[in-house]
Amino acid sequence: MTDCVGLFLDEGLVMVADTRTNAGLDNISSFAKLHHFHRPGDRLITAMTAGNLAVSQAVMNLVQQGVRHPESGEMETIWTVSTMFSAAALFGEAIRQVYRVHGEAMRQHSVSFDTSILLGGQLAGRTMRLFQIYSAGNFIEATADTPFLQLGEHKYGKPILDRAVTKATPISDAGKLALISMDSTLRSNLSVGAPLDVLIHRNDRIDEFQTYRVTENDPYFAMLRERWAAALYDAHRDIPPPPWATFAPAASA
Amino acid sequence: MTDCVGLFLDEGLVMVADTRTNAGLDNISSFAKLHHFHRPGDRLITAMTAGNLAVSQAVMNLVQQGVRHPESGEMETIWTVSTMFSAAALFGEAIRQVYRVHGEAMRQHSVSFDTSILLGGQLAGRTMRLFQIYSAGNFIEATADTPFLQLGEHKYGKPILDRAVTKATPISDAGKLALISMDSTLRSNLSVGAPLDVLIHRNDRIDEFQTYRVTENDPYFAMLRERWAAALYDAHRDIPPPPWATFAPAASA
Repeated sequence: MTDCVGLFLDEGLVMVADTRTNAGLDNISSFAKLHHFHRPGDRLITAMTAGNLAVSQAVMNLVQQGVRHPESGEMETIWTVSTMFSAAALFGEAIRQVYRVHGEAMRQHSVSFDTSILLGGQLAGRTMRLFQIYSAGNFIEATADTPFLQLGEHKYGKPILDRAVTKATPISDAGKLALISMDSTLRSNLSVGAPLDVLIHRNDRIDEFQTYRVTENDPYFAMLRERWAAALYDAHRDIPPPPWATFAPAASA
Repeated sequence: MTDCVGLFLDEGLVMVADTRTNAGLDNISSFAKLHHFHRPGDRLITAMTAGNLAVSQAVMNLVQQGVRHPESGEMETIWTVSTMFSAAALFGEAIRQVYRVHGEAMRQHSVSFDTSILLGGQLAGRTMRLFQIYSAGNFIEATADTPFLQLGEHKYGKPILDRAVTKATPISDAGKLALISMDSTLRSNLSVGAPLDVLIHRNDRIDEFQTYRVTENDPYFAMLRERWAAALYDAHRDIPPPPWATFAPAASA
């Protein structure tokens, strides 16, 4: 399983992915799910993948090697596309090409052709955008109303994002909230695991992005987990109990 | 969709269910999912249902009308079973009977035969128990290691229970935590909705149970939601931002 979150903020993008891959609960490995493509002064594009690892790796390979555009017939790569929309279309086309090659054989072996990708970034002089691409190769785009997109095991970590993240949230808060969200998932689903990969891409600063790997023993993450757990504990302790849950030995209702 | 939680504590059982039923997002109704069977001095058994409403209602009907025991051939009802284990087996058998009648026709219309039940309670002089019964009629039991069971849309509300509930948690805290858990689900999934039904069954006090319906405008629930939201906001504000998320205009990594 996977948990990836992409936050689409006024200040820029915060992309966070776990690194655990599992085929059943007894075959767990670690693979990077966060990839970035950077050409100084020109483009910074980040892709996070979830789903079948063989499919994801084939797609990541194709977008670098080249995929033929279905209408123009020209070969395109992540380095030649001229807009983020074209980059999303390129990933979609790559997924379809992998499906044509492997889809039928995977079905024969009852393996689900399951992939999804968060693709965010900016080309010089253009606006920053964030897309989610589905197994069918179609895609949606984050807008001001939806300041985050998630892949994979997203439910445990969604409530804190629903409550706290808006498009105006500063990146420093957003990085923290993304880790709090991940912490909830890590506690509730064994098949999502640290280390976590983070990439921060500030708006109009293609060449000044930051990447960071948060390990299980990362001092900041350890502090955040401990303080968040303590704060939750205090928070519910400070709320009085429901009047109907205090003992009143009356007759049955 | 449904969200039901049963907390299995030293002090007793806390059972909470939402009341929303939906067939698609544009056909939403309210049906009680929490039912209790009380005979003074003898038994208090609470059932919460999730899944297909026609199946749940048929099962609830059968356990009151009578189901033939698959081995003894005798008719049993929720009023005649002599243990909680037999009550769980009765519900399982009722589900199988509904499946024999409706399963094939439902499949022809691509309706999934999907039901699950949380069944908790106590018979006089016996121990309190909590079971989860599946669509196949088989069931599991909560133990000291698993102080809560959930049905339906459970993921949004699970992290707070994972963190805060143990078997020793007092009922007054547990009632509060169950509502906090429900609040997370209500915010993240439109198809789970108030009012919420609560039943509190203290250990060895079959005749002193409490039931309560928490409406959307319930003053305690409104206060809890507001204070919890504020506490979460304060909690994350008090944690410093990650060192790697504060702006450092260095060259690309």
